[in-house]
Amino acid sequence: MDETADLPLVDQHCHPVVLEPLDRAGFELLLTEAHEPGPAGTSQFDTQVGLAVRRWCAPVLGLEAHADPDAYLTRRAELGPREAARLLLGACRTSDLLVDTGLRHPGLCEPAELAGLSGGRVHEVTRIEAVVEELAASGVEAAALGPAVADALADRAARSVAFKTVAAYRVGLELPADPPSSADVRRAADRWLTDCEWKDRYRLDDPTLVAHAVHTSLSLGLPLQVHTGYGDPDLTLHRADPSLLTPFLRALPPATGPVVLLHCYPYHRQAAYLANVFPQVLVDVSLAVNHVGPRGPAVLAETLELAPFGSLLYASDGFALAELHHLGAVLFRRALARVLDEWLADDAMTADDARRIARLVAHDNARRTYHLEPS
Amino acid sequence: MDETADLPLVDQHCHPVVLEPLDRAGFELLLTEAHEPGPAGTSQFDTQVGLAVRRWCAPVLGLEAHADPDAYLTRRAELGPREAARLLLGACRTSDLLVDTGLRHPGLCEPAELAGLSGGRVHEVTRIEAVVEELAASGVEAAALGPAVADALADRAARSVAFKTVAAYRVGLELPADPPSSADVRRAADRWLTDCEWKDRYRLDDPTLVAHAVHTSLSLGLPLQVHTGYGDPDLTLHRADPSLLTPFLRALPPATGPVVLLHCYPYHRQAAYLANVFPQVLVDVSLAVNHVGPRGPAVLAETLELAPFGSLLYASDGFALAELHHLGAVLFRRALARVLDEWLADDAMTADDARRIARLVAHDNARRTYHLEPS
Amino acid sequence: MDETADLPLVDQHCHPVVLEPLDRAGFELLLTEAHEPGPAGTSQFDTQVGLAVRRWCAPVLGLEAHADPDAYLTRRAELGPREAARLLLGACRTSDLLVDTGLRHPGLCEPAELAGLSGGRVHEVTRIEAVVEELAASGVEAAALGPAVADALADRAARSVAFKTVAAYRVGLELPADPPSSADVRRAADRWLTDCEWKDRYRLDDPTLVAHAVHTSLSLGLPLQVHTGYGDPDLTLHRADPSLLTPFLRALPPATGPVVLLHCYPYHRQAAYLANVFPQVLVDVSLAVNHVGPRGPAVLAETLELAPFGSLLYASDGFALAELHHLGAVLFRRALARVLDEWLADDAMTADDARRIARLVAHDNARRTYHLEPS
Repeated sequence: MDETADLPLVDQHCHPVVLEPLDRAGFELLLTEAHEPGPAGTSQFDTQVGLAVRRWCAPVLGLEAHADPDAYLTRRAELGPREAARLLLGACRTSDLLVDTGLRHPGLCEPAELAGLSGGRVHEVTRIEAVVEELAASGVEAAALGPAVADALADRAARSVAFKTVAAYRVGLELPADPPSSADVRRAADRWLTDCEWKDRYRLDDPTLVAHAVHTSLSLGLPLQVHTGYGDPDLTLHRADPSLLTPFLRALPPATGPVVLLHCYPYHRQAAYLANVFPQVLVDVSLAVNHVGPRGPAVLAETLELAPFGSLLYASDGFALAELHHLGAVLFRRALARVLDEWLADDAMTADDARRIARLVAHDNARRTYHLEPS
Repeated sequence: MDETADLPLVDQHCHPVVLEPLDRAGFELLLTEAHEPGPAGTSQFDTQVGLAVRRWCAPVLGLEAHADPDAYLTRRAELGPREAARLLLGACRTSDLLVDTGLRHPGLCEPAELAGLSGGRVHEVTRIEAVVEELAASGVEAAALGPAVADALADRAARSVAFKTVAAYRVGLELPADPPSSADVRRAADRWLTDCEWKDRYRLDDPTLVAHAVHTSLSLGLPLQVHTGYGDPDLTLHRADPSLLTPFLRALPPATGPVVLLHCYPYHRQAAYLANVFPQVLVDVSLAVNHVGPRGPAVLAETLELAPFGSLLYASDGFALAELHHLGAVLFRRALARVLDEWLADDAMTADDARRIARLVAHDNARRTYHLEPS
Repeated sequence: MDETADLPLVDQHCHPVVLEPLDRAGFELLLTEAHEPGPAGTSQFDTQVGLAVRRWCAPVLGLEAHADPDAYLTRRAELGPREAARLLLGACRTSDLLVDTGLRHPGLCEPAELAGLSGGRVHEVTRIEAVVEELAASGVEAAALGPAVADALADRAARSVAFKTVAAYRVGLELPADPPSSADVRRAADRWLTDCEWKDRYRLDDPTLVAHAVHTSLSLGLPLQVHTGYGDPDLTLHRADPSLLTPFLRALPPATGPVVLLHCYPYHRQAAYLANVFPQVLVDVSLAVNHVGPRGPAVLAETLELAPFGSLLYASDGFALAELHHLGAVLFRRALARVLDEWLADDAMTADDARRIARLVAHDNARRTYHLEPS
């Protein structure tokens, strides 16, 4: 399956990159989902993703494979962060990047800059919790918040290819099957805004308001991306098990747009099951594939036990470091090729089948889901 | 381990087949656990089970391996559904089929017909929820329902080799350790029958009545099969995690008959653990093995990490399509051979051990559990 | 990676062995986590651990590999349990054994005897629930119990290298983020002691008292080992999912000593995630590796998807049978070598990286965590 190396990829979920210089401590903190460095004597390079940076990114920057961490960071600094990002993103052969614009971090570039750096087209994904938080911070009053959210999401729908929710982080994935009533939304807004003012921080963690934003998004017909599975330590893992979404998914009206389960690990088999039995559900194994190094084929194969070939998407979930986008692409291509080769060797499919499955997963499913033109 | 190809199998859990003509849409809907077809442009043949039908069933019907879906369905129609079923079931080399008679579907044949089609012996498994529902629909009154269930289950015990519960679908697997009192059963019957009449539908979803049927079944000494893990989208996956059964299993009196955890995926490691620590618990990986194609060896190997070799059973869970019974048998034999070959290559056991384990899993464990005569 | 065969191991969690003669039934019961023997006609040798004893322990006792169970037990009896233990433990090349002294069983040797038998150094791990139970059984009154626990744990800290909690068995892993108040502890002590007297049994199963002991231990600065994942059938598996610890771990003050998740299977991916995002969390896959035979590499590889190489420890969790300590060491070395060899073959790391990772996991991480001198 050497063909996987040349397939254009649609990266259906990623973030901007940092284009400012990073020292080793700064680079290491962005290489992990942890919020703090490890104990003295440990390094984030002592992880699968650390090894993978040395193995796969070093040659892109003109070093030997497996260059040591300091050599890598020295070379990266010599090139400058922008040139390093251009090399790493440009080597992904990504035709389209769907960029979540709702996660803030110092030094992140504008989404549009990713187009120039990567040579791909950039499309916006609107994070619905950020929309609610911005409205609240701008001083919208409780009585007006519910309708204002609906208006703002409708506005964003016009310029976005998808919505995204981080309900997993905020309230867990037991989303209600039905939208909350206006009265409930109003009461919740009252309570939550009071709490925000008291804390002087606008972080949407009210279940009713999250449900309102989720159901409003769905009603607008765009695909809804749902964070599931692992992430940074703000998250309580078992509350992000996609199986918790079952009652919500079961109640979706047939005409609802696609629901895309992001990441999913270590519940990717559960997510694949949902994609198997709910026609409007799709899944990816982003974040996992660029973090687990040589274990990508294992994770992908587990997902493809039950996920229909028309329901699996590619994404990197690359954030801040262009290395993470690059590893997503390289390791996903390799994992897909490995898995398909094994199944060909096992005579489980024909070479034509394998090529078609590779195209579905690399870009066709994403183009169908997000109405993207072929590149 | 070429011997696995010739071992007679006991299919300890399956369903009748449809012997009426099926068009492509009808066939595809029976090939999946989903209740609805996928989005336009997708096909249920774009799954592991779809590939497996083309790979393994096509040659049984006289086509090349990997025949395309339309060619397969054309050939199937030419032969006629009965002849196709005879070929597919006959090639399973199944000595005994334990048939769940409680799941209704238009066009399903009588269980006894499976004997003629497959060349194996057929034994009935009584689904306890169906017994309760039939009594309720027949007009039994609330006060009489509890005792009537006990009587009907005792009747069925005389002609069944096992009971089966779908509590996972109806109330989740947190079954109570103790049987409910007669007074509780009566109150529950009152409530549930009123609700059924109001809905004009008899679907047993009352936890007390389910518990009454489960505990009554156990007291009758037959093995009790318990649906666990994945299934169709009526089910909420995490509520079917077999670990939820732990307090129930811990409280089982030592003299209770075997409790057999069906399917289990993706919680098959959890199920294997229960089989490891509770001597009366057995497991299978049915439904999974015929749906995951080339991943059968991986699923089986994970199960055999902790499941004692005397506690694993074979089943297809084939339903409606004889293809599913056929794939169960073919893929299970292949998975077992692959796994044992790897362990032999690793010098983890002798060839005699491997042959004995294969016989245990293929039929000896099932004969011991259900008191079946060797074929 | 032949080097793994020679690396000294730190067994960071194990138990004493039985040095009295055992008949076949007695040996089989100690070979399993089950509390009762299996049905007639089954044997605990029909498990991965049973095969592994025949494969790996038989040659240490001077028999052919794969000796049958009776031959093995006959030879063991001829040598005598002490000599068999000396051979099996001596062949582990374990430099240090951290011994949990809180699990009682008839015939267990003194921890100190393990030093002579194994040639390694022995360090005590104090099980905190046992400390509370001993105080209660000694007649400490409710009002004094909380402070007495704090005093006793401080005493034990002086002679222990770590604390261990079996909260998973007693109350599940949803430990509170904050320590309970003195008033709450006193009320809980009152309730629990009354209950113990009534039952005439001192088994710590009160959540407030468990939380008091856990938080007191943490405040003493020693590493805290936490049982997670599978064990004997007293445990309800899903309540031992380490993900349940997330709110507790998130609230740990940065200066807290390491928290070590023991066993973890089948939630080892969840545990590895916690080790990835919480710098003070470490994990092992003890109990699993010696029970799953040829599947050790698979379990270890899954753990090393997200566990930083500086956060994985070795342990056998050997209990009662020196065979379990021996299998822990042999199978862990083999699993580590296999996994690293695969990753080398995949060019995911250099040979120097592989050797360094092997040393971290075999002993360096444990020495850093428990402040042990190199051997």
